[in-house]
Amino acid sequence: MPSETDPAALEAALAEIRSALGPDAVLTAEAAHEFRDPYDGFDEAHFPSAVVQPTTVAEVQAVVRIAAARGVPIWTSSQGRNNGYGGSAPVVGGSVVVSLRKMNRILEIDDELGIAVVEPGVQFFELVDELQQRGGRWWTATPSLGWGSVVGNTLDHGFGYTEYGDHAAHVPALEVVLADGSLLRTGMWASSTSRAAHPRGFGPNLTPLFMQSNFGIVTKLARPLSPRPEIYAPITIRVPDGEDLGPLVDAMRVLTIEGTIPNIPNITSVLGAAAMRKPRREWYDGPVPIPDEVYRGMCETLAIGWWNCSAAVYGPAAVVAASLERVREVVLKSLPHAEVTAKLLPGDEIDHGALTHRENVQAGRPSLVMLETAKWRGDEGGHLEISPIGPATGADVERIAAILRPIVEAEGFDFWPSVYVIKRSVMFLGVLNFDRSNPSQIAAAYRVARSAYPELAAAGYTPYRGNIRFMDMMQDIYDWNDHAMRRFLERLKDELDPAGILSPGKQGIWPQRLRAGRSGPPAALHSAPVRAKEDDR
Amino acid sequence: MPSETDPAALEAALAEIRSALGPDAVLTAEAAHEFRDPYDGFDEAHFPSAVVQPTTVAEVQAVVRIAAARGVPIWTSSQGRNNGYGGSAPVVGGSVVVSLRKMNRILEIDDELGIAVVEPGVQFFELVDELQQRGGRWWTATPSLGWGSVVGNTLDHGFGYTEYGDHAAHVPALEVVLADGSLLRTGMWASSTSRAAHPRGFGPNLTPLFMQSNFGIVTKLARPLSPRPEIYAPITIRVPDGEDLGPLVDAMRVLTIEGTIPNIPNITSVLGAAAMRKPRREWYDGPVPIPDEVYRGMCETLAIGWWNCSAAVYGPAAVVAASLERVREVVLKSLPHAEVTAKLLPGDEIDHGALTHRENVQAGRPSLVMLETAKWRGDEGGHLEISPIGPATGADVERIAAILRPIVEAEGFDFWPSVYVIKRSVMFLGVLNFDRSNPSQIAAAYRVARSAYPELAAAGYTPYRGNIRFMDMMQDIYDWNDHAMRRFLERLKDELDPAGILSPGKQGIWPQRLRAGRSGPPAALHSAPVRAKEDDR
Repeated sequence: MPSETDPAALEAALAEIRSALGPDAVLTAEAAHEFRDPYDGFDEAHFPSAVVQPTTVAEVQAVVRIAAARGVPIWTSSQGRNNGYGGSAPVVGGSVVVSLRKMNRILEIDDELGIAVVEPGVQFFELVDELQQRGGRWWTATPSLGWGSVVGNTLDHGFGYTEYGDHAAHVPALEVVLADGSLLRTGMWASSTSRAAHPRGFGPNLTPLFMQSNFGIVTKLARPLSPRPEIYAPITIRVPDGEDLGPLVDAMRVLTIEGTIPNIPNITSVLGAAAMRKPRREWYDGPVPIPDEVYRGMCETLAIGWWNCSAAVYGPAAVVAASLERVREVVLKSLPHAEVTAKLLPGDEIDHGALTHRENVQAGRPSLVMLETAKWRGDEGGHLEISPIGPATGADVERIAAILRPIVEAEGFDFWPSVYVIKRSVMFLGVLNFDRSNPSQIAAAYRVARSAYPELAAAGYTPYRGNIRFMDMMQDIYDWNDHAMRRFLERLKDELDPAGILSPGKQGIWPQRLRAGRSGPPAALHSAPVRAKEDDR
Repeated sequence: MPSETDPAALEAALAEIRSALGPDAVLTAEAAHEFRDPYDGFDEAHFPSAVVQPTTVAEVQAVVRIAAARGVPIWTSSQGRNNGYGGSAPVVGGSVVVSLRKMNRILEIDDELGIAVVEPGVQFFELVDELQQRGGRWWTATPSLGWGSVVGNTLDHGFGYTEYGDHAAHVPALEVVLADGSLLRTGMWASSTSRAAHPRGFGPNLTPLFMQSNFGIVTKLARPLSPRPEIYAPITIRVPDGEDLGPLVDAMRVLTIEGTIPNIPNITSVLGAAAMRKPRREWYDGPVPIPDEVYRGMCETLAIGWWNCSAAVYGPAAVVAASLERVREVVLKSLPHAEVTAKLLPGDEIDHGALTHRENVQAGRPSLVMLETAKWRGDEGGHLEISPIGPATGADVERIAAILRPIVEAEGFDFWPSVYVIKRSVMFLGVLNFDRSNPSQIAAAYRVARSAYPELAAAGYTPYRGNIRFMDMMQDIYDWNDHAMRRFLERLKDELDPAGILSPGKQGIWPQRLRAGRSGPPAALHSAPVRAKEDDR
């Protein structure tokens, strides 16, 4: 087993964990297979050695203390459904996966303020069900797939499709187990008397420090809910030509910055919808790139555009009507051939069975239908996302596409973009679908990632999130002032987790004992005097 | 001079700073008086020893390196106009104030994305002027007073009155000089190639760590701008009775959470407007409390309500009209006697001279007229704010008022609330106006703070920001799990600023060498094992 861990220390730690949590809390051998990377079953470098499933905060604290005492790396996973990023699999092979699936209580729904407090095992599906059972007065932001963890998605900077779709930006407070087993609460929860109403508390807001990081294990998190609107109006914008992407992005930037569209618009090519219907070979059995006439045929068959944008407006009927008028005005001004349609749905009478997946998800209703698209290249579908962020302008998005497309196609993949407009920025998801039973297809997807990220970064487009295999490369890209950010993060890591046990390597943050010999600047650089270049903008 | 600093080290440091920055960069004696607390000229405990005014990032780095080498505490001030909180005055008397007023370049206005990049000396007035000179296409969020620093206000979690009025929540990136003199950039700026378009970069978002903290000196900051709307509609809601505050808060919570009102509504009593007109003695020359009939007389004279709420809607004419209808519906449902008025102002033709101060500030136009209100108790006006945060419900706001009012009045002050509704939370500003030439009035204001904050905290309402005198008390209030937050902040402080020179005591965060003997838990506790109480909600 490829591991940074002493086998004897591992065995001793697992014995102590069994003793503290009960024998059923530890899974090994076959029982632990579920926690490997679901889309790469071949990569032993990222196999966990065992899986621990605590059920309480105190059990998480016990696990952390044992791991710290024994020097055993642990890797936290909430639900582990972030499949394109590695699922529950650790960066460091042989790590003990701490799966929080069994800590799945919804601790509080504040019906007056619209705030939910959840444990890390709570799935979006479960939160949606709870809100429905309470009368449906509040909706939650959610990604497409509902089986994932609310906490896990938020901590990994995941996106949904409503006003709070930038999940990480809307966390007023959290609770975290630190590497010494102690507990910290952030925001207003740092006071023993107050509720998580305000976006932060007193002093530096520590909440973001525990997102996309390995400084602690989050055990509770608060997040705002959206009130059920009088009218929910899902909008669909269809444009016929491949060249229409840029102007569509520009229109969405204008409409979201001015507030007419309050949620996060998502623009996809016809491939996404085509993949929901049937696999690639039934559309086109030739090599990449799919010819333009096949694209046009898909558009015709599916009665959609080459590019299709989902967005939404929520509110009183008259506000919604006026907002839709403005959406039409802005879109049609630059895209006269666009088809702009909207449904006007009373918030309290929505028949979700009659809505499309995209219409549902913008109303806080996830599903699993998007899993179908992974079967584009075979029933054993896997996928990897190339996900740079950049300015939300048509020119930038076209440049990202121009860089990414040839790299993707050179490795035999279809160019499959899905663009999220987050006011001033886009998150550009380049989806690579592969047959996960085919090692050479998996390897090709990894080659795309290794080529694309540096090329995109050279042009100003940097990663937003990372598959376990590319964390170092991505952290390398954030290079300003001799990697000042990484050097700072390493100082925090060494202070907060001196034994270096919490998710080593996550986001390219390594504890001191594992830094030497890694990619990036040599360890010697870390103690060298910092070149203080003033690089004024 | 009351100082934690060795006089010889201070002299040596100042000599080195003069040598590095030039003799004019250092102010001492009379020239430094301007940087004392403007509202308490008697309190020698918070006099700075000297003032340094760097003009470049490299000079800030030089100052920090010299201070670290000599162990001299420095206190950062951007413009130092946060007068109710201490102006430029340091927590630790004898600190060298590093005033960044001379670093006042507007480095960038991104006209496409609507992002400004500023240095810490840039005043709101200056940013507004620059935006106007560029055609007025973008508006900035701003507090009432325009002389303050954009960066300083943002870093202290200050509030404005537009959609981005929660300034600290909207900082995509910043640059900071660390305690070793090195430079760090956060968000997308941590990449040498990218722009600050996205709310954060890769890994834990470090931006909030440098707000309300003493972990670095921020030298550049990016912030979003608001597009000039087709129609700007400032709304005024007036309610006649003292009991109307709670329902008004409830209405504003509903309207802001649902998005009908996108900005931060502010509710003030008639006293605020009365103070703009003339001092207290010309309204009522008796002791506190001002009788209800005098309040009613003020309302009649000024033709306003007992409570007056300013809010705003921005957008296309039809959206604004429909939104105003919804505002009326929600407000009048619970407050049938309310008067709801709005102006419909074309965004590109606003005559700011014809607008009230509150109408201007919600359109990104600050002024200095609010300074007039400080003269309530005499021309030498000073003020101190009691500023708890809590849930945005009528019941909570009435409870805050019920706790605060008797404490305020027992010390001879009028009860003077100004309530900001930030969706799910309120920031309740209890303003104490005093004659700053009268030491006993100043002392009375401090007694109010010392009584009010603990009593408010016991009921769940905790401080959002602090005057230099009450930082420890406020940090004490964030007490969960034996002050876990403070202990965590101290670990960061010791790692990031081992010499303990950066703004010691700010937000109650002390470096190790100055912790012993402070209020709060004894130093011994810091190394004691943490009691791990699971306190599930």
